[in-house]
Amino acid sequence: MPRTHSLDLVVQFGECDPAGIVFYPNFLRWMDASSLNFFRQCGLPPWRELTASRGIVGTPLLELINVRFIKSATYGETVRVVTSVEEWRAKVFVHQHRVERDGDLLCEAREVRAFIYRDASEGGRLRAMPVPEDIRAMCS
Amino acid sequence: MPRTHSLDLVVQFGECDPAGIVFYPNFLRWMDASSLNFFRQCGLPPWRELTASRGIVGTPLLELINVRFIKSATYGETVRVVTSVEEWRAKVFVHQHRVERDGDLLCEAREVRAFIYRDASEGGRLRAMPVPEDIRAMCS
Amino acid sequence: MPRTHSLDLVVQFGECDPAGIVFYPNFLRWMDASSLNFFRQCGLPPWRELTASRGIVGTPLLELINVRFIKSATYGETVRVVTSVEEWRAKVFVHQHRVERDGDLLCEAREVRAFIYRDASEGGRLRAMPVPEDIRAMCS
Amino acid sequence: MPRTHSLDLVVQFGECDPAGIVFYPNFLRWMDASSLNFFRQCGLPPWRELTASRGIVGTPLLELINVRFIKSATYGETVRVVTSVEEWRAKVFVHQHRVERDGDLLCEAREVRAFIYRDASEGGRLRAMPVPEDIRAMCS
Repeated sequence: MPRTHSLDLVVQFGECDPAGIVFYPNFLRWMDASSLNFFRQCGLPPWRELTASRGIVGTPLLELINVRFIKSATYGETVRVVTSVEEWRAKVFVHQHRVERDGDLLCEAREVRAFIYRDASEGGRLRAMPVPEDIRAMCS
Repeated sequence: MPRTHSLDLVVQFGECDPAGIVFYPNFLRWMDASSLNFFRQCGLPPWRELTASRGIVGTPLLELINVRFIKSATYGETVRVVTSVEEWRAKVFVHQHRVERDGDLLCEAREVRAFIYRDASEGGRLRAMPVPEDIRAMCS
Repeated sequence: MPRTHSLDLVVQFGECDPAGIVFYPNFLRWMDASSLNFFRQCGLPPWRELTASRGIVGTPLLELINVRFIKSATYGETVRVVTSVEEWRAKVFVHQHRVERDGDLLCEAREVRAFIYRDASEGGRLRAMPVPEDIRAMCS
Repeated sequence: MPRTHSLDLVVQFGECDPAGIVFYPNFLRWMDASSLNFFRQCGLPPWRELTASRGIVGTPLLELINVRFIKSATYGETVRVVTSVEEWRAKVFVHQHRVERDGDLLCEAREVRAFIYRDASEGGRLRAMPVPEDIRAMCS
């Protein structure tokens, strides 16, 4: 079983659309929040500190492998985003996120992300780096 | 070649994150805007009119089959979202979206969506309906 | 002392801009969330139930009297939105919101809002109604 | 008459709430977009270039003096944000924004903003600077 952390959120009125249900890009916003929460719960400092100390700017998304929207949600409901790293590769890792309401699965996603740094030799262009071994160890 | 419509947008400062690049759920927001723009360009009225006249509430997302983030973008840049319907099935359809900047592909996605209505016999629960034939004809 | 309820939030990465600080419209999003939380904590049901039972659609904003941004915030920080109704008038009420971090004031606002309903005699146009006496009593 | 620039936007489905109207913090997002558009139309480069060349990080909001929401809007409508600088002071300036639909005023706001830089002597803390004379001349 991979290490798992979860984030609880109350759905806001302004996150719902004229059909009265969550406007779906908000599910992705919540998953991004849960990704950062995962790394913080594993003991990592905020990206701004890792930028200063080690040049790690963050873990942007390279690919949403698949996202299934199974049930809708509406404002006032509490949802839980359950996040783990399903697979660590040399230069990327695969996140799994499940958004649940009272144990009921609403939405499920798999994401490919990479750790990035600014390449000074290319005018600060953002580039992927190998997954740092110590971070992988902290988060497994 | 399926029918294609596109939507041009200027990336806003507030759509970018502390790394200086577009916060990725905004790509999905733009694709949703381009989906609605596609149907309007095909001649459909707004959902609120279709809700009143035919009970069609909208076309929520059932699945993001795959989304690839190839290049990042930043504020002040103009991006174009190019949208088509790749496939019409009995109860769902598959959107293809390409987000481009000066012809350069930034992000590509395939989405499964359905037309939905409120089922009065179930307290107004949102349910998928068969793809309306006339809408399919207008949009092909 | 008017009745007061507060809402705690963790600032998200995607709520911050390229300067690394909260993109300011998010402060307003949080205040709107805290307004709804205030009414729920006072015992009111969600707007969708009040729409069905009494025709009350919500409490949209008529005016931001003044909003002062005193200190910035960044992702990972926990902020508290402290909300009360400062004044009840015949057709409107005045919210006061204070956004704090560890007791430190970040942002302060006063808002004028009204309870609204759909006027069937005008094709469903949204109109302000007198502040319902029972709601005022529950929330004072 | 102060110099004026405007920005046209189509209201998106996802910018509207369960009451079917624009979720109001989006009006502020549009005004922020129109503020940046104003400076670009006056001939200023993007903030990221001004950060590199002159240390100017942006023009964050210090105060919303007053925002009046007069009429609501919904998705599919085109709105125009008309922006000017009403007053230049030593360390701040006052923006006026009017959001219109077909010449009809929907929302009006006055904002106080400052040009900021990172103070290296204080660990990069963001601080207001005097309004640069050349920028004031370009934008008046």
